[in-house]
Formats: sequence, C-alpha cells, structure tokens
Amino acid sequence: MLMSKLVGERTKTAPSDAVIKSHSLMIRAGYIKLVANGIWSLAMPAKRIARKIENIIREEMDAVDGQECMFPVVMPREMWDESGRYSSIGDEMVRFKDRNGRDYVLGMTHEEAAVQFARDAVNSYQQLPFMIYQIQTKFRDEGRARGGLIRVREFTMKDAYSFHISQEDLEKYYVRVYDAYNRIFKRIGMRNFISVLSDSGMMGGAVSHEFMLLTDIGEDTLVICPECGYKSNMEVAKCMPEAYPAEEPKAIEEVFTGDAKEISEVTAYLGDIPAEKTVKAVCYNIKGDSVRTVLCFIRGDLEVNEAKLKKIVRAEVVPANLADSALVAGNIGPVGLDAENVTVVVDASLKGAVNMVTGANKEGYHLKNVCEGRDFKASDADIAKVKEGSRCPVCGAPLTVKNGIEIGNIFQLGTKYTASMGMTVLNKEGKAVNPIMGCYGIGVGRAIASIAEERADEKGLNWPMSVAPWHVYLCALRVDDAEVREKAEALYEKLQAAGVEVIYDDREASPGFKFSDCDLMGIPLRVVVSPRSLAAGEVEVQIRESGERFNMPYDGCVEKIKQTVTERMQI
Amino acid sequence: MLMSKLVGERTKTAPSDAVIKSHSLMIRAGYIKLVANGIWSLAMPAKRIARKIENIIREEMDAVDGQECMFPVVMPREMWDESGRYSSIGDEMVRFKDRNGRDYVLGMTHEEAAVQFARDAVNSYQQLPFMIYQIQTKFRDEGRARGGLIRVREFTMKDAYSFHISQEDLEKYYVRVYDAYNRIFKRIGMRNFISVLSDSGMMGGAVSHEFMLLTDIGEDTLVICPECGYKSNMEVAKCMPEAYPAEEPKAIEEVFTGDAKEISEVTAYLGDIPAEKTVKAVCYNIKGDSVRTVLCFIRGDLEVNEAKLKKIVRAEVVPANLADSALVAGNIGPVGLDAENVTVVVDASLKGAVNMVTGANKEGYHLKNVCEGRDFKASDADIAKVKEGSRCPVCGAPLTVKNGIEIGNIFQLGTKYTASMGMTVLNKEGKAVNPIMGCYGIGVGRAIASIAEERADEKGLNWPMSVAPWHVYLCALRVDDAEVREKAEALYEKLQAAGVEVIYDDREASPGFKFSDCDLMGIPLRVVVSPRSLAAGEVEVQIRESGERFNMPYDGCVEKIKQTVTERMQI
Repeated sequence: MLMSKLVGERTKTAPSDAVIKSHSLMIRAGYIKLVANGIWSLAMPAKRIARKIENIIREEMDAVDGQECMFPVVMPREMWDESGRYSSIGDEMVRFKDRNGRDYVLGMTHEEAAVQFARDAVNSYQQLPFMIYQIQTKFRDEGRARGGLIRVREFTMKDAYSFHISQEDLEKYYVRVYDAYNRIFKRIGMRNFISVLSDSGMMGGAVSHEFMLLTDIGEDTLVICPECGYKSNMEVAKCMPEAYPAEEPKAIEEVFTGDAKEISEVTAYLGDIPAEKTVKAVCYNIKGDSVRTVLCFIRGDLEVNEAKLKKIVRAEVVPANLADSALVAGNIGPVGLDAENVTVVVDASLKGAVNMVTGANKEGYHLKNVCEGRDFKASDADIAKVKEGSRCPVCGAPLTVKNGIEIGNIFQLGTKYTASMGMTVLNKEGKAVNPIMGCYGIGVGRAIASIAEERADEKGLNWPMSVAPWHVYLCALRVDDAEVREKAEALYEKLQAAGVEVIYDDREASPGFKFSDCDLMGIPLRVVVSPRSLAAGEVEVQIRESGERFNMPYDGCVEKIKQTVTERMQI
Repeated sequence: MLMSKLVGERTKTAPSDAVIKSHSLMIRAGYIKLVANGIWSLAMPAKRIARKIENIIREEMDAVDGQECMFPVVMPREMWDESGRYSSIGDEMVRFKDRNGRDYVLGMTHEEAAVQFARDAVNSYQQLPFMIYQIQTKFRDEGRARGGLIRVREFTMKDAYSFHISQEDLEKYYVRVYDAYNRIFKRIGMRNFISVLSDSGMMGGAVSHEFMLLTDIGEDTLVICPECGYKSNMEVAKCMPEAYPAEEPKAIEEVFTGDAKEISEVTAYLGDIPAEKTVKAVCYNIKGDSVRTVLCFIRGDLEVNEAKLKKIVRAEVVPANLADSALVAGNIGPVGLDAENVTVVVDASLKGAVNMVTGANKEGYHLKNVCEGRDFKASDADIAKVKEGSRCPVCGAPLTVKNGIEIGNIFQLGTKYTASMGMTVLNKEGKAVNPIMGCYGIGVGRAIASIAEERADEKGLNWPMSVAPWHVYLCALRVDDAEVREKAEALYEKLQAAGVEVIYDDREASPGFKFSDCDLMGIPLRVVVSPRSLAAGEVEVQIRESGERFNMPYDGCVEKIKQTVTERMQI
C-alpha cells in the first residue's frame, strides 16, 4: 500500500471527548471514523488488524472443533419470544417492524439463532458434542457508548455455541475453550490479562468466566487473591464474613442521635465508635415497582453489591424513594421494624454481631447493644462488596482490587435455551433430553482497542507483529532522488514478493513528518532508504517497540527483514 | 471435518416453495436454514463457500488498488438526509428509532457512508483516485424474497466506491473494475455470464453495467445481438423504430367494433388485420397520485417498457384505474382525445404510421386510416419493449432475448453524492471540486446460489474446486473394519497436512447412503477407502463433475490427489 493513497487523515489533535489513549490515538492515526454515537467506520489499517484477529480466533475455534456458520443480524420476534428474551431484554435491543408490520430485532447475541439452526438438524446424542460459531456484526443500543472501540453500539463479535449431552461433557469442553481463549489473547499480543469468575447476566446459566485485560481505565472491578490465585469479577466476588470479637451482650439502650443519619455521622456522634460496630440500612425499589422496598442490613463498614442483591431478589433494583414509606430514613434498624411491602435482606456479615449500633426506627434515635440472634436474625445472603484487604474466600489471604476491560467471556448456559425453544435429542436410553449449552464470545473491535491501550506509548500506537496492519513501514527519504526512489520501489516489490506486508511512504515530505506518521501508526518495523543509507550500501531498520535501530546491507536485506518479521511474530 | 459431527441435515425432500434447483438443493444438502422470509442462516459448508468467494473478490479488489474498510450496518438518518435518499427510498429501507428517539436506518448500500468516511480525510486531487470497499452485511426489505439465496432481505455484499478528479479518470478506472469483475466470476467458477448495459436505478448516475449469469430461471430479461455483441438489460434496451411500408393515406373512417377492446379482439373483428397496423393505448397512474393518468400510444404489436416510461415521466407508474376518468377504456385513440389530467406519450414506433386502426374515444367504435403526422404526432420517446427479432440498435441484426440473474453491477455515479454531501478536493488549479464517483457491487450469497444453479445436476450440487467447501469427500466404507478405519484416518490426516481440505465420512452407513450425501453436497473429489480397494492396495477416486472414476495406489495417493485438486482449481 502507498501512504500517498491511504485514506485516513493523521492529525496532531484528537477530539476532546477522547479521554483514553487508544481512542485518541486510533482517531489521530486515521484508523477509525465516528459515524454516530457508538458507531464507527474502520479505515483500511483497522480493518486489516480486525481481519488478522479474526483469523487467529478462527484458527483457535476450528482447533476446538468449531464449525463456522453465519446467523442473521435481523431476526424475527417469534424466535426471541420462544426464549422469553423479547420481553426480558430492555432498551438495549433494537426492535422494528418490517414493511408488512412484522416485528424484528437486531441481534445482540445469537443463542436463539444457534438453537433454531441446530434443533431440526440434530436428533441423537451421537451427534453431540458440537460447537457452532460465527464472526458477525451485532448491535446493542448501549446507553453509555464510550472510549472509541472499547464500548460501542455496533460491533463485530465472534460468538460460539456448544451443545452437550451432559454437564460433565460441557465442563470438559469448557476447559478446552478456556485454553483456546488464553492462546487467542496471547497470540493477538495481549500481555496483562487474566480470567475471572463472572456474573452470567442476561445469558442465564451458572458458571461463567470473563477474560480481563488489567488496566486502570477498565470499567470492570476485579478481585484478585495474590496468594492462591482466586480471581473474580467484583459483581460476583464472595465476601467472607468475619468473626466478631468475643464480647458480653449488653441490654439494648435507645440513644438520641439527632440529625446524625449516615454511618460516619452516627459513629462520630457516639464518640468515634468503629463503623464495624454499626448496622447499615440500605434501601432499594424494585425497578418498575414503586410500592415494594428492598431493605438491606449490612455491617456499617461494608457496601451493598447491587449485582449480588439483584440475583437474590431476582429483579433489577434502583435507589429507593422513601417519601411515602413508613421507614424513617437514616434511623432504620432491624429491631422493632414495622413496615408494609418491605423485603428485608440481612447480609451474612452481621452473623454473630454483638452490641451493635442500629437505627431505632424513630426519628432522631438509634439503638445501642443490638445483638444478632437475640434481637434480629442474619441470613446466609451475601450482598456485601469485597474491599481491598477483604479475606479471600478460598485461602483467607487479603484480596487486592484492580480494574480491567472485559476482552472475552465464556458461559455454562445449561438448558435455558434448549428447554425454552424445545430442542431435544435422544440420549443413549432413547429418551428425549435437552442438550446442555455453553456460549463463548470475543469482541473484535474491543480487542483492537485493548491491544492499543496496553501497548501504546507517548509516540503513538504500537502493534504486535501478529496483528499489525503492515509488518514494515518503508520510508523513502528524498523521493526526488532517482536512486532512492528506484531502490525503495525495488525493495517495496521484493519485500511483498517475499510475503512481507509493506506500507510504502512514497510522499514528498520531511523525514520528521514521515517518522512521526510511522510512530503514530505503530507499524512494528521501520525501514529507511535515504541518500545517506544508500551511500553506505545500506538500509536503516528501527523496531517500533524498543526503539532499537540498526543498519543492514541493502543487498540481502529482504531475507533479514523477513526473518525479523518472523521472529517478532512470537512476541 | 467429520461428517458425523457436521450440523446440517441432508434430506430427500425440499420445501414445496423451493421451485428452483439451487434453492431446493441447498436446503436438501443442509447448507442453508430459513430463519424468516428472506433471512437465512448459513451452515458450515455454505459459510466456507462464502469465505472463498470473499477471498477471491478481496484479491481482485486489492489488485485494482482497493482499500478494504468497514462501514456500519446501522447509520443515522442525518447522513441519508444529506444525500436525499432518506426520503427518496421507499419501504425497502428499514428505519427505526434508538433508545433516545433518534432515527436510524439499516444500510442497503453505502454511498453515504463512503463519502462521510472520505470527505474529511481527502483534500487534494493528488490523493485521487482511490477506491474503498467493504464486505459487509446489508438489509433490504425486499417485497418478493424468493429462490433461497437468490433474492433475500439480509445479505453479504462487497460494495466498492471509487473517487476521481475527472470523468476520464473514472472511465479508465471503470474498465479496470470491469476486467476485475470478469476475473472474479471466472475464478469463482461461473461459466455462462455476460455484462449488459443497465439502468442505474436508485443509485443515480449515467453509465452502468450489470453482470448476468444466463439462465432460464433469471428474473432479468436481457437483449443480446448475436452479430455485433450489443448486450443490454431489457429495462434500458433501445427499441429501433421500423419503417412503415409506403402506402397512400386514406380518409379516416369510424367503424363499429362492439365489445372488441383488446388489440387481438379488434384485429379479429376487423377481419384479421395485422397488429402492426393498429395503435395500442396503455394507461398508467403516477404512483401515489390517483388523479393524473399517463396515456401511452404504441404500435399494436409492441409492449410498453415500464422501466423506460418511468424515466420519461420521472416517476413510478402503476396500472391505471380509469373508473372516474373521461377516457373510454378499450376505445382510446390519439385523435379527438379530450381528457383532463392526462400526460400523453406517443412512442417513436408510430413515426410515419399510415392508415392505422385506433380507438375512436367513443364506446364501441374505432377509427380506420389514422395517419401519424396528419392526424396525430409521434414523439421521439422510446417506451417500447424490445422483442425477440427486433433490430439491434447498433448493427440492425435481429436481437435475441434471454433471461439472467444479476451477479454484479458497476455504476458511474458522477457527483450525486459528493455534491449533495459536500465533499470537495482542490484540483490542480486550486479550485474546490466534487470528486466523481464510481460504485461496484457483488452479492456473495447470490453468487453462491448462482454457481449452484448453473452447475447442479440431477444428483445434487456440484461445486467448482475454487470455492468448494472441501476439496475431497473421504469416504470410508465399512468403518467397523479396523484396517479401513486406520487407513482412512491416516489418509485424512495426511491429506490435511498436505493442504487438501477434507470432509471425512466416518459414519456407520451403507455405501449408497454415503455416496448420495457426497453427490448431494457436491464435493469435487470423492476418495473411497474400502476393504476391496485396500485388498488391491488402492483407493478409488471419482470426479463429481464428470463422474470419471479411477483407482490409484494407496501409497503416494496424497500427492496425486493434491495434484488433481490443483489442476481442477483452474476449471
């Protein structure tokens, strides 16, 4: 490719809303172009990266016996009614009517399509297991598109669906995909990534993992045990109850606390008692139900993990409006509580709590010396958010908390879709059973942005050889010099003939201008042909990542460059 | 791939609405699965064919300096308002609102996206010409989806857009793409295809060509001159007026014709006069306008070409409802015509007509001896449909009429989009001008169906080697025989290691069952390993297309099979 013809403007400035590196640099390097909120066009270099990532994914999916298929972007409502997701998924799914007034959706995931595809074609356990996958456009009407390709509305995704006769078989296959994912992320050049236990969300199912690139700009919060390797998304991280120090239960005492409502105000008012010695009340409403209140009690130093709470109450929750409620905001406590339409969830962190401060359910008052067991009952429910330093649920060591970008996910779905959509196969005993499914996703655009985010430096993007849009940026300095032009063009042809992908900067421009475009675009090898290098019979090679620079004889450089490309393919 | 695990049921019967070969066979072979009207899922073999076709297209597009990009499926209304197509395109474009109430469309073509992508990035004539393309999903809410993948609503298309500083440059580039298209269709295994002049329809622009696969089931009607090679879509084929025999004009005479209304009835009633001696009246309404009538007069043996008429009246036309009109249906004529709100178009076929029979504009009567020039005026308008045997507009030889499937199209667009969307570059003189565009499309799914349609035989599909889902169907007969199993599996591994794509029929089934699946699926080479072949130290090879069958020694067969695959890649 000739730089003089490449469409995609390189600029010194990025739009002011580009607050993360990858977003800003990919715009500045002319890789992506905004079309509408969360909707992008990819220029040639970005499309080349996407194709290379797709091909690596494809190889690894084929290696675990995947069958590449193609399901449609537009699907009829009926299919989503079968699974129940036409009504259970909210605004993020685009719905429209066709010219005949029939309802359609834009696919944001393809469990329904995979089951519809397979259910008539597979009849016997002997045809299981199998995995079908596609690499296809999806649309999710994301409320908070941001960060360039990190969080978008339209995206290309590899989504895979496996079908099994037993949970054991699914689990065996799940491990194969887990390993394939590790290979994929490694091969596309990601470095600091981990897998964590995760919430299966709208997919349904039990066990699931997310692959996360660790980075400060990540939107996900991850809980990691440096001792035993336990790793979890904060949303599902188990909070271990801590034992309360042995203490003699005292008699309950009502104390005036005036305007002190927040835990920090109450503890200060009562003479700096520790927050751990208080019971915090947190109220929610069920989304779309203004009557019912969910009232959570939790140890005063902890926060409620809404993702875990949602699972327990089996509904979306929103911060409560207590205006018309009998609850006394800021003075709510578990003792003598008397309110209608309230679901109470007492977190396990309060188990065994002795002599605690709680609200007195009376304006301006709290109770002291409230004891769990005697005065109220804690449940086994775990709705607490893990904190830095919380105990690891596996080994008990202090946990650390980090941020990550989700770069892939794998789910054990169970029979949610095969049961609801009526897919059965005959098992060995001749009985019709629902196959057990797994599903496995990787977003291609987000992978591009994540690699960019992890590898970029102050000079610009910095692609690993395995997915770089071109291997070599061939830079002719002084293209008005006939010899430079001739030798550079000959090298351009020879490198390509040798299978090296080259973008050739044939423009009449200064060395500084060209070098800065090369750095900004992040092409792994820069090869310079200039009057000076030719005078010495050489070309100059620079490695983008390390900045390392060396000369090699012009004659025979094609082989050496090719070798460097091959070596760096593994890095 | 193992046949025992391939998802996609092969059946003996196709749905009753599958009236064309490719549709029926692709369903029967388990290649495609209907999701909704005009919306399909592709099974693994069909997806493999699609990818091979896409890769051939990609190679040829890259060879004419194309830059592969990716534009979105979902686009904001604003972009389509700029070009004016948000309102000019009808029901076939899907429109919906996002969660914030903004209007979006599903892309059915991407001229707007291409201009939006390029307009900020390109400023100077020196950056021209360039061509950007994508291979991406499109949706067109087609009213008459039919024929499997022939006419669908959701489809994968390669669409390319070129930008030029002058018409000459566009024309030069247009020829390069024209040649590339010929190479593409040849490489993907099409045989009987031609290019024809075509109507540029909703794209705008002047010159355009369609590539057509000649086949009786084609929906397009093509006009071909066997003498000079003139080829045109019927929609735009020029009809040459024919000279009337010299004859003395007679005086007009009104004759009673009773219930005779159609030309055939009138000519019969009047004693078998030739239809060429009559003037036919054909009435239309402008679509969406119930008042205005378009009244066409044309020589009685000819039909009106509505595509050409549409261009002349610059509107869609529909058959007229004459209920409230002053026109006397069946007796309309050009003489003494008196009707309001009527646009009259007299076809050039009536130029010089002498002593014609026409309607008398009076219930039950016609006129004889009506003469053009004396009694009414013909225009230069050409609204007549070419017939088999009509004269070629280039060389005058008799034309033939054939059916075809459109497999690709190329358009000289002009500045319709760059002007309306405000894309300019500075020309050599430093003046801002709108680049001149070309656009170039190929539907991938339709290409699959067209190849299937052209090549299938009574036994099933029959893929050319270049796009076949697998090169070899390896058939083990008697898989319960340990030696067969061992030798077949070894061959499966070795062939794949040698780069031959193999589907291995490892199922316990009868030879007939396996052979018929192999024939139905249309894999180019069948290789059989059986107790009998092994007894002779051989494998049996059959070529799907010719039925030719020969044995080769088991030892060394990998190289020979590979060579056969390579040779047949050109066929």
